[in-house]
Amino acid sequence: MSEFLIISGTNRPKSNSLKVSEAYCEELLNLGVNCNLLNLEDLPRDFVFSDAYGERSEEMQSWIDELIQPASHFVFVVAEYNGSFPGILKAFIDCLPPAVFHHKKASLIGLSSGHSGALRAQDQLTSILNYLKVNVHYSKPKFSGIDRMLKEDGALNDLIIEKIKEHVALSLEF
Amino acid sequence: MSEFLIISGTNRPKSNSLKVSEAYCEELLNLGVNCNLLNLEDLPRDFVFSDAYGERSEEMQSWIDELIQPASHFVFVVAEYNGSFPGILKAFIDCLPPAVFHHKKASLIGLSSGHSGALRAQDQLTSILNYLKVNVHYSKPKFSGIDRMLKEDGALNDLIIEKIKEHVALSLEF
Amino acid sequence: MSEFLIISGTNRPKSNSLKVSEAYCEELLNLGVNCNLLNLEDLPRDFVFSDAYGERSEEMQSWIDELIQPASHFVFVVAEYNGSFPGILKAFIDCLPPAVFHHKKASLIGLSSGHSGALRAQDQLTSILNYLKVNVHYSKPKFSGIDRMLKEDGALNDLIIEKIKEHVALSLEF
Amino acid sequence: MSEFLIISGTNRPKSNSLKVSEAYCEELLNLGVNCNLLNLEDLPRDFVFSDAYGERSEEMQSWIDELIQPASHFVFVVAEYNGSFPGILKAFIDCLPPAVFHHKKASLIGLSSGHSGALRAQDQLTSILNYLKVNVHYSKPKFSGIDRMLKEDGALNDLIIEKIKEHVALSLEF
Repeated sequence: MSEFLIISGTNRPKSNSLKVSEAYCEELLNLGVNCNLLNLEDLPRDFVFSDAYGERSEEMQSWIDELIQPASHFVFVVAEYNGSFPGILKAFIDCLPPAVFHHKKASLIGLSSGHSGALRAQDQLTSILNYLKVNVHYSKPKFSGIDRMLKEDGALNDLIIEKIKEHVALSLEF
Repeated sequence: MSEFLIISGTNRPKSNSLKVSEAYCEELLNLGVNCNLLNLEDLPRDFVFSDAYGERSEEMQSWIDELIQPASHFVFVVAEYNGSFPGILKAFIDCLPPAVFHHKKASLIGLSSGHSGALRAQDQLTSILNYLKVNVHYSKPKFSGIDRMLKEDGALNDLIIEKIKEHVALSLEF
Repeated sequence: MSEFLIISGTNRPKSNSLKVSEAYCEELLNLGVNCNLLNLEDLPRDFVFSDAYGERSEEMQSWIDELIQPASHFVFVVAEYNGSFPGILKAFIDCLPPAVFHHKKASLIGLSSGHSGALRAQDQLTSILNYLKVNVHYSKPKFSGIDRMLKEDGALNDLIIEKIKEHVALSLEF
Repeated sequence: MSEFLIISGTNRPKSNSLKVSEAYCEELLNLGVNCNLLNLEDLPRDFVFSDAYGERSEEMQSWIDELIQPASHFVFVVAEYNGSFPGILKAFIDCLPPAVFHHKKASLIGLSSGHSGALRAQDQLTSILNYLKVNVHYSKPKFSGIDRMLKEDGALNDLIIEKIKEHVALSLEF
């Protein structure tokens, strides 16, 4: 049975990526699907140095063992940073043993404050994931103008929740 | 059951793309899988004008009805032209109703005389196919230095035939 | 002195690409800069076959000699077709001797009916032009929702004309 | 007058990227050109957290003031990590005020142990730099099989030094 891991692809505090990740995870759990959430905010602050080139922190090792290795389907939620996805996400991927990705599946969700909906972020991440032997679903929602998709209290509005549910259905068929 | 369509992605006469396409198709047929081959050499010479913007030639319509619409899995064999895939292939795609691609699968094989094995061609075509709602297999063989993979009589050598067989097996699992 | 060639990157009749190309050219001529316009509608209908692999039509040869070879700065106006630029444009490039591009400059203008403004078209074309030893200007206007930038009679509205003028100024400094 | 900043795009100790960066810088200095070198190994270990979202460490601020802001031409030396450039490099870019890049120039050098010479890394970084209003030189050397371009003592061999010198000449004309 599928085991989903939703990756909130930024360490920005209180990010929209995290809100979307939580909504995606909640919908999967409601449907009875196994799902975990990994928030890059929780990475060791020095992971780019502590977890590269042969080093491995205890924290990262437990993430690998308990969250990443067991997952069969990754959902990357990526906001647009400088026209692509956040560098911290690729730095995180670079710190992992490539084999944790091999022969798995992925879905990509894009967020942007501007027009593009993180289109380029999704294209570039698709190429990298394909390189890591991951099959990526063609459907890559692009939530452009994300700030206009929030309610007054900052929660996601009904439209975006609806689109997340539609995409969850597609991911489950993949 | 899967119905494969192999697309030899160039109109260059006696192309290596065609040789690879034929070998891929032959291996599928040997395994009892339905498979057709579409050679861009056979396109109407003026298709870029005769089959765009609402026009439709009889020849192209019969290709659509008999080869493209029934296919569930496309294999694009693309040589590197000017650092990407041949323009004629995208021109061909642009002439088709987008719905013939929707919700289908694709595999990409790259050929190059140089080092890259048509890496960029594959990346760019993947983005376009994802846009057309096609799921693309992560494994994209890169036959670089293709001219050194030919026997004296111009046929494909055993190494490349072996790699084609390995990839056919992956495509069948997709 | 710079010699501009504006390439309207589609053979669609009465295209918005052509309107933008004409406005770009007109602005350059108003400023006293040499400028020609090449409209892919005027290509020989069978150029994909007649002008590849060693063949060369008279029409294309005169385009090369009189328009393409003398140009020092190309402006590609590209509408989004199937998530990238029109295939006919790459097919056209594939028919030219690569050396006509070497060590020249290019600017890219994107048009789309949807949100993206042909962002991916521009990215992919940039890679191809860099491969052909062309320096591409970073500023790549993205005219998304192009149909809403037209007056009732189909002419370009003042906003888009203003943006074209701004970009012409940038191109002249490159 | 041009002020070059060479960025060794990884924090891997004793990296080949650093060797190439040093050779590039040395050649520029030999020609009397102002040049500095920025080695990502020297970043604060927690910069991904300490220097994002409004925070700024003293170390990074002095890098910005003394090295990055004054530079007019960046040379990014990027090794292939998981099919693209190292994530730490994008994380570093994400931590900088975008305006430090605007209206400047860049050259990209690619290194890989495999065939591609970091082709995709260069394509993706070009798109990001163009987004940041940086003009990128078309010529992007691809040092594939980098390990075979080293002498027994690990120093760069004469061939790669020669190619670096050729590229320095191109960068100076840009």
